[in-house]
Amino acid sequence: MTISPSIRRHPERGSTDPAVIQAILAAAPMVHVGVVRDGWPVVLPMAHALDGDALVLHGSVAAGLFRDVRRGSPVCVTATLTDGLVLARSALNHSMNYRCAVVYGRAVPAADPLAALRAVVEHNLPGRWAEVRPPTEAELAETGVWTLDLADAATQASAKVRTGGPKDSPEDAALPVWAGVLPSLTGYGAPEPAADLAATAPAAPAPRTRR
Amino acid sequence: MTISPSIRRHPERGSTDPAVIQAILAAAPMVHVGVVRDGWPVVLPMAHALDGDALVLHGSVAAGLFRDVRRGSPVCVTATLTDGLVLARSALNHSMNYRCAVVYGRAVPAADPLAALRAVVEHNLPGRWAEVRPPTEAELAETGVWTLDLADAATQASAKVRTGGPKDSPEDAALPVWAGVLPSLTGYGAPEPAADLAATAPAAPAPRTRR
Repeated sequence: MTISPSIRRHPERGSTDPAVIQAILAAAPMVHVGVVRDGWPVVLPMAHALDGDALVLHGSVAAGLFRDVRRGSPVCVTATLTDGLVLARSALNHSMNYRCAVVYGRAVPAADPLAALRAVVEHNLPGRWAEVRPPTEAELAETGVWTLDLADAATQASAKVRTGGPKDSPEDAALPVWAGVLPSLTGYGAPEPAADLAATAPAAPAPRTRR
Repeated sequence: MTISPSIRRHPERGSTDPAVIQAILAAAPMVHVGVVRDGWPVVLPMAHALDGDALVLHGSVAAGLFRDVRRGSPVCVTATLTDGLVLARSALNHSMNYRCAVVYGRAVPAADPLAALRAVVEHNLPGRWAEVRPPTEAELAETGVWTLDLADAATQASAKVRTGGPKDSPEDAALPVWAGVLPSLTGYGAPEPAADLAATAPAAPAPRTRR
C-alpha cells in the first residue's frame, strides 16, 4: 500500500499512516465503492471487511457494480465515519468531524470466498459467524465476494481526519452564538425479533455501541 | 429528473418515485460524490443539501474533487442511510436495512451561493442559519458551492430501500439462532462547548434524534 499524494486541502488533516487507514476501514459500518462505467462514475454502498491485508467487498447490494470489477477495472473504496457536527459562530466555519479512508486499487474475486464472507459477517457483529448456519457450497458459488490487496504496491490509500472544536477567527469568538461540537451517537437500539422467531431461539445479541 | 433503468439486483427494492429519492437525500447527513479523474473513479464525502430542485454540494472537505467538477465532468452523488443490521439464521442471508439514493448529473457552480450555503447549514441543524454570523462577500467568493439540477431531464436518479426482517428459507427457520434486526441508533450526544466559548453565549442546541 502506498500513500496517495493528493491530500491538497487541509493537508494537516491527512494521514500517511497505514494503521490509521486500516483503523478507519475497521470501524466503518460499510463503504462506498466507485467504478467507471461508460465514462461515468458509479458509486454504490457495499458491505466490507478487513481480512489481513485484504479489503473484502461483498456485492449483494451492488451486483451491477461487479460486472465492471470482473473486468478488472479500477475501483475506489471510500469509508467515512461522521463523528460530529462542528458548530461555529460564523456560517462558513461550520464543519463536520469525520474520519475518511480512500483506497484505489483493482478488486479480484476472493481467493478464499468462505474466509472473506466470514470476515464480512464478523465485521459488524463479532462472534456472529459461530452462531449461524455456514454457507453451503452451492450458496457460496452464487456469492460475489471480492478483495482488494492493501499490501499491493499498486494499491494507493490515504486518510483524512478532522477532530476538535470550531475554528472561528478571534474577532468572532465573542459573538453571542453557541459554538462547539454535537457528537454523533452511534450504536444499536433494542433488537427487533423476526416475526417467525422460534420460541426456543437463544436471546438476542446485547445492543452495543457500534464504535 | 428521469429514473435510472439500472436497478438489476432485487428490483423490488428499487424505487422510481422522485419523492422517495428526495426524502433520502433530505435525511442523509452527507453524501459520497464520485468523479472520474484520469480514468480512475474518485469518491469523497461531501456536505450537501436540497434547495428546491437543486442538490447542493459543498466542497470544503473535498476541494480536489471540484477541479474536475469545474470542468463539467459527470458526477455521481450517492446518499446512504444504514437503518439496521439484519441477522438471519444462515450466514448468507445476513443483510442490512438501508435507504440509498443515487443521482447522476453534471454539477455547476451555484447560481446563488448564499442560498446554497444556507441550505447546507440548515440541512443538518434546522434553524442554525439565523443564529450565526452570515458570510461576508469575501468569504463567499472563496467558497466552492455547486448544484446539480434534479429537475433537469439529463439528471438520472434512482433509490433502493431494504426494510424488514431476515429472509431465511423455511428449513432454516427452526435453527437455534436468534434472528431479527438490530436497528441503527442515530442522533447526537451531549453538546461539547468550544474551549473558548464565552460565558455569555446562549445555551447549546438541544440534542435531538438525527433522523
